[in-house]
Amino acid sequence: MTNPSLLILPGDGIGPEVMAEVRKIIDWFGAKRGIVFDVSEDLVGGAAYDLHGTPLHDDTMAKAQAADAVLLGAVGGPKYDVLDFSVKPERGLLRLRKEMDLFSNLRPAQCFDALADFSSLKKDVVAGLDIMIVRELTSGVYFGEPRGIFKEGNERVGINTQRYTESEIARVARSAFELAMRRDKKLCSMEKANVMESGILWREVVTEVGKDYPEVELSHMYADAGAMQLTRWPKQFDVIVTDNLFGDLLSDLAAMLTGSLGMLPSASLGAPMANGRPKALYEPVHGSAPDIAGQGKANPIACILSFAMALRYSFDQGEEAARLEAAIEKVLADGARTADLMGPDGGTPVSTSGMGDAILAAL
Amino acid sequence: MTNPSLLILPGDGIGPEVMAEVRKIIDWFGAKRGIVFDVSEDLVGGAAYDLHGTPLHDDTMAKAQAADAVLLGAVGGPKYDVLDFSVKPERGLLRLRKEMDLFSNLRPAQCFDALADFSSLKKDVVAGLDIMIVRELTSGVYFGEPRGIFKEGNERVGINTQRYTESEIARVARSAFELAMRRDKKLCSMEKANVMESGILWREVVTEVGKDYPEVELSHMYADAGAMQLTRWPKQFDVIVTDNLFGDLLSDLAAMLTGSLGMLPSASLGAPMANGRPKALYEPVHGSAPDIAGQGKANPIACILSFAMALRYSFDQGEEAARLEAAIEKVLADGARTADLMGPDGGTPVSTSGMGDAILAAL
Ligand SMILES: CC(C)[C@H](C(=O)O)[C@@H](O)C(=O)O
Ligand SMILES: CC(C)[C@H](C(=O)O)[C@@H](O)C(=O)O
Repeated sequence: MTNPSLLILPGDGIGPEVMAEVRKIIDWFGAKRGIVFDVSEDLVGGAAYDLHGTPLHDDTMAKAQAADAVLLGAVGGPKYDVLDFSVKPERGLLRLRKEMDLFSNLRPAQCFDALADFSSLKKDVVAGLDIMIVRELTSGVYFGEPRGIFKEGNERVGINTQRYTESEIARVARSAFELAMRRDKKLCSMEKANVMESGILWREVVTEVGKDYPEVELSHMYADAGAMQLTRWPKQFDVIVTDNLFGDLLSDLAAMLTGSLGMLPSASLGAPMANGRPKALYEPVHGSAPDIAGQGKANPIACILSFAMALRYSFDQGEEAARLEAAIEKVLADGARTADLMGPDGGTPVSTSGMGDAILAAL
Repeated sequence: MTNPSLLILPGDGIGPEVMAEVRKIIDWFGAKRGIVFDVSEDLVGGAAYDLHGTPLHDDTMAKAQAADAVLLGAVGGPKYDVLDFSVKPERGLLRLRKEMDLFSNLRPAQCFDALADFSSLKKDVVAGLDIMIVRELTSGVYFGEPRGIFKEGNERVGINTQRYTESEIARVARSAFELAMRRDKKLCSMEKANVMESGILWREVVTEVGKDYPEVELSHMYADAGAMQLTRWPKQFDVIVTDNLFGDLLSDLAAMLTGSLGMLPSASLGAPMANGRPKALYEPVHGSAPDIAGQGKANPIACILSFAMALRYSFDQGEEAARLEAAIEKVLADGARTADLMGPDGGTPVSTSGMGDAILAAL
């Protein structure tokens, strides 16, 4: 039997440093738990552009399609701001999502007990928070045509198209209902059906899919009210399902509620491959943080937790994922803190690799 | 000289009750300050649908076009959920915005000292908060064509179009820069230029308009990062300018930061009319709250503050507006609290009309 394959794309900014810590963890699981991966590494984003003139080389795309799972660091940086839209670092990431057809983006917003004080929200509002946002990731205004900047009379007009087919909505809704079944059986769907026809179709299809999940309590909310309610009392939610653009804003908002962005992983899942595993890409929610790149200040936990999600969702190793998550909780409870986690209550400052080592030790 | 005209559209749910309190205030300004309006009243939303089968009768539209300012309560309610999209209460409001060409929607998010404890955010994060969101209100995905639900092969597809011309962006940007000049001279523009071409054009045009305002410090932020930063540390912002859909979410988020939604007014302004006054519609940020309608529980302050905005922006009565705002602050400081403002710290419970009377007394 061959080992499952992992393609690692560290990307830009702090991507490579946090990924170096993930490599240590992967090695540990190989050596100590007999969970061995065939790991290969390649470029994405600005790093790929610098070498190939494109943010994702076709060879890399092919490797990603063939891999059992892809682990990505982060893309982007001010150096690339001047580039044409078509070769910006983000396009590499968007191409991966689109061509691998990773339609279901799972973004947990979880508040770690040891870090509840970091939130800008009151402690009772966020302590114990554990919600999951399921964001549609391969359609909507991110990919709809027509798009572009066109000449019209004597001025220019910027156009993008929000576009959802019934089947696109149904498949992401189904993945959200499945998740809700394994959690608290509550699903809230968010759109702007009061203003957008695409939202009307969204609501209709989600309701229809819900008939297959009578145990799940389904509710609907306008996305603006959703933003409010997430801010007011986020614990009212269990699973939220929403489209690509609303999901972009709402999941970032939800992530910030926890106060510890450097802690949040994500999984982007597609249809099952021949071997039964879903197409999958895992990445931290945080960006490339160019301002602190290369200084050993970055927090590797979001990226390590993304690997834990890979263990759970791609490799059916839920117990090993839980082992890794518990090690991280322990390290935090013991007071280890990267720069982003240093708060008024002190703690022991550690570097990026110091945090990786502490987690290894706790394992 | 004739008196300036005010068209009052109470609308649905709590709209009529809160508007009744505004009428008292309007009468007071006429009797005591010699600021007399020709007031007329008409229907909008579900109330208009019930009588005319349309959420905005053409006669009402004509009256709104002719009025010096329009004051609106709120529209919508569960009773109308079953209606076809084209006659939903919201369409009445959207028609007013579009046909009056009210492109600049001013949504202050202000935290009242007496109410800082109401926020779900920590007190130091929101105390003294005073930001202004300028939302484009007549274009973007709210109005772009093509739109609708279409048949495509054997499934349906929901389509909406995000669409901005240079001049549409320029005029709302200009109104935001003007506001920034009268405030702290800081403007942050939000879009998704990393993903949407309409966002690229937005950023370009805002930057161009900014050349006429060298004193204003202009920054740009992706809308998802904007949602995060509003949650993390909202006081970093002074004025924010953004498009119709992002503005819908971000202004609701900003409103919720203050913890007192029942307190927030808004102004929607268009081009100057022949008499020099801008086309204008004023309305509270809160909705029609059907669950508490008709029970004397609604907080009339947002609607009264909307009238204060009318005094300031339509009738050049900034001092009178400040007088009204000061009366409201005093009433709050004295402890008068509608149901939505009853918190752990007590206060004196008052009804909708009790709050109106208290404000009158303080004037
Ligand atoms: C980097 C960017 C293209 C991306 C997005 O908008 O989807 C990011 O914000 C995210 O949420 O993953
Ligand atoms: C009622 C609805 C159509 C409206 C909008 O989406 O603009 C509301 O949410 C608002 O923000 O004024």
